[in-house]
Amino acid sequence: MKALWLEDRALSMRDIPLPRRDDEALVRIALSGICGTDLELVRGYYPYTGVLGHEFVGEVVHSPDPAWVGARVCGGINVSCGTCDACRRGNPTHCEVRTVLGIVNRDGAHAEYVALPLENLCRVPESVPNDAAVFAEPIAAAVEILEQVEITADDRVLLVGAGRLGQLIAQVLATTHARLAVVARHEKQRALLHARNIDTILEKDVVPRHWDVVVEATGSPSGFELALRAVRPRGVFVLKSTYRGDLSLDISALVVDEITLIGSRCGPIDTALALLERGEIDPTPLIDARFPLARGLEAMGLAAEPGTMKVLIEP
Amino acid sequence: MKALWLEDRALSMRDIPLPRRDDEALVRIALSGICGTDLELVRGYYPYTGVLGHEFVGEVVHSPDPAWVGARVCGGINVSCGTCDACRRGNPTHCEVRTVLGIVNRDGAHAEYVALPLENLCRVPESVPNDAAVFAEPIAAAVEILEQVEITADDRVLLVGAGRLGQLIAQVLATTHARLAVVARHEKQRALLHARNIDTILEKDVVPRHWDVVVEATGSPSGFELALRAVRPRGVFVLKSTYRGDLSLDISALVVDEITLIGSRCGPIDTALALLERGEIDPTPLIDARFPLARGLEAMGLAAEPGTMKVLIEP
Repeated sequence: MKALWLEDRALSMRDIPLPRRDDEALVRIALSGICGTDLELVRGYYPYTGVLGHEFVGEVVHSPDPAWVGARVCGGINVSCGTCDACRRGNPTHCEVRTVLGIVNRDGAHAEYVALPLENLCRVPESVPNDAAVFAEPIAAAVEILEQVEITADDRVLLVGAGRLGQLIAQVLATTHARLAVVARHEKQRALLHARNIDTILEKDVVPRHWDVVVEATGSPSGFELALRAVRPRGVFVLKSTYRGDLSLDISALVVDEITLIGSRCGPIDTALALLERGEIDPTPLIDARFPLARGLEAMGLAAEPGTMKVLIEP
Repeated sequence: MKALWLEDRALSMRDIPLPRRDDEALVRIALSGICGTDLELVRGYYPYTGVLGHEFVGEVVHSPDPAWVGARVCGGINVSCGTCDACRRGNPTHCEVRTVLGIVNRDGAHAEYVALPLENLCRVPESVPNDAAVFAEPIAAAVEILEQVEITADDRVLLVGAGRLGQLIAQVLATTHARLAVVARHEKQRALLHARNIDTILEKDVVPRHWDVVVEATGSPSGFELALRAVRPRGVFVLKSTYRGDLSLDISALVVDEITLIGSRCGPIDTALALLERGEIDPTPLIDARFPLARGLEAMGLAAEPGTMKVLIEP
């Protein structure tokens, strides 16, 4: 099959064998989405060799349980062992020996087919089109915030960053009816948010030490600093981005202000699909372009350009 | 009255007027305790001019409500306005215009008398001697951890640091019956913990990524690093110390492991006194020396020596 391959920081289109395993489902990809993490892997932030891609929707064509064959599915990206300490504790996404689709030791979704265990799959509700379902994984990552932090309509919530993940986080946060404002640097980002009736705010207007919950989704040290300054004493600071290298931090200020800082990664795909089914979220305006898989390199090039939201790949 | 005065990083014994205010209680100090923060203020970590000291037990000699006169009391150190955003939210210890006894704009307790609003005072149960009650404030700071993090008997809890605050934190954590181990560098620290049937562990034996809850109480970058390494994915890291300057931190690791980092400061004095009354905690073995107030400079000198636990001052 054709696949977008990463090796030694170099991307190429390759013909590789089908990822067929008897104990896993084989999914024919309908659409895959390019994520910021794909770009970071190419930049070498983490070492990875294999097929890129971890956002997808597709159809099960082989399965150890035939009841799944023909199902339209999205998938959780962490493949866990079920027996380690983290798994037994009910944290399979933190499995100590996990593989991660297109990120850690497991070929990803920018390909014609992908293999995943059945327990990673979620059926896509009939009313949710592929163009929306392909966002299930990053929406789940946004939903993870609500699994970790209780946010009520009374809360003043600030989101810093309105890129491809930030836009989805904004929509998910908006479902809480909290008093939400989003720091969005670019006009296009603001327009997308305003179209969803989500308020934006300029960096200079962010009142420091004021916000009950602040979510950082820029991945830049300056965004991190802005976000940290904005949290009120006893407030919550959710970290939704990774950063290149270490950041310097005034830990004493966290102590004196009793700030809670929470790292947040993957979330529940089923909840994400339910939000899409109920129409509470619409990610499709974020689609900037779609490319056939054969033009995967071009797709990655466009996705890396500043200001690009979602680029999709169709095998 | 005599008082231990700090100005321009220099300590002196001074004769100053009584801190009499019509709307506050006047407390005659029976005992005050020297805290690590007192030493940090002398080192100039924070700017402060005035009487040092914020751990005390004493007797009310004047009060806007005469019912308090004669009461033996300890006191919360944060004096709040009651009307700011933080106060209205129920976080008076984070009052935006607070004064803090012996730390921020309010003369402290290493003196013959101290003034505090009635709402800051707690009556000391009859069975709790002054030698124990004088620890109410730092015990409350330790209790704050349990207000912020639910700890059960199943949890693996690591405390890094067994100095004067660490010893109290260890005793408070032990009340949860969690599987507690304390990193204690010095033989004296270990002996004090073992006498309370609290397990200690050597730094080299701390299994990384293993502990459900880790509490950092060393205030040193090396302690911080050890503690951070020890937290399991989705675990909780409680910061109980302040640090000189910024620390460098791999934020991405916090995100990937979904660590919760919680800053923790002052806690409830009444809960601390209740623990003392029930005999669940005994701080008195930590008392290394006591000095008359007139020898306050000597007391501070001894408290600053490595290995010293608690030094008390008697007016």
